[in-house]
Amino acid sequence: MLVQRLGDNALEWELYGGAGKVDVEWYFRERTALPTSVVRYHLEPGAEEGEHLHLEGDPESCSVKNSDELYVVVVGEVVMTVDGERSVLRAGDALYAPSGSRHGVANESDLPADVILIFGAPDPALPRLIKE
Amino acid sequence: MLVQRLGDNALEWELYGGAGKVDVEWYFRERTALPTSVVRYHLEPGAEEGEHLHLEGDPESCSVKNSDELYVVVVGEVVMTVDGERSVLRAGDALYAPSGSRHGVANESDLPADVILIFGAPDPALPRLIKE
Repeated sequence: MLVQRLGDNALEWELYGGAGKVDVEWYFRERTALPTSVVRYHLEPGAEEGEHLHLEGDPESCSVKNSDELYVVVVGEVVMTVDGERSVLRAGDALYAPSGSRHGVANESDLPADVILIFGAPDPALPRLIKE
Repeated sequence: MLVQRLGDNALEWELYGGAGKVDVEWYFRERTALPTSVVRYHLEPGAEEGEHLHLEGDPESCSVKNSDELYVVVVGEVVMTVDGERSVLRAGDALYAPSGSRHGVANESDLPADVILIFGAPDPALPRLIKE
């Protein structure tokens, strides 16, 4: 069975200049045939990823390629910011950050929060019903 | 902001003949440019998905196309079965079910459990380091 235990690929990343420490677990990193990556963030109170964007050719981009990102909050409560707009998301809520949007996640609550991220290159062949 | 609240796309599926009821939330269903789907299962004690497989051309397949699936347990504890082998997974653990493997998730514990599923067609261009 292809099982990854929590901690098997644990990383401590400062990420994009955010405060505090975000514990990162990258599931089956670059080992699967699925065309998206899957990562878990564990954010203690006060931790934040830092705002960033993924847009090919943009000098402010933190990646050379475009990347769309889907965030699913699975434990606790976080604040997500997209292009200057803030929203509180709770366990079970999700947010979609298209490539080019400036976005970030922060834990401003008093309890830990976990978020699952699914990200990858947007597929131009897919009907993108969500407009940026 | 592109936010989906828990319950916005809630489904009650019997899934693949499993016992009990699994609450399903499909995030941004068929509305994104990401080439994988993202779903949340909420399993009360005793609930199970039912074992199934995704393999093009196989008469036992429950889908016409191949699909690889990555399960991430985010709350509680579940039992996953792949090709007859069982393993207990807890919050933060993950399992990869390549297309063609017979697999399923069940909550045999006394507490609710949540699982995030990421699935889609395996990309033949990707180096599939995980062997079936």
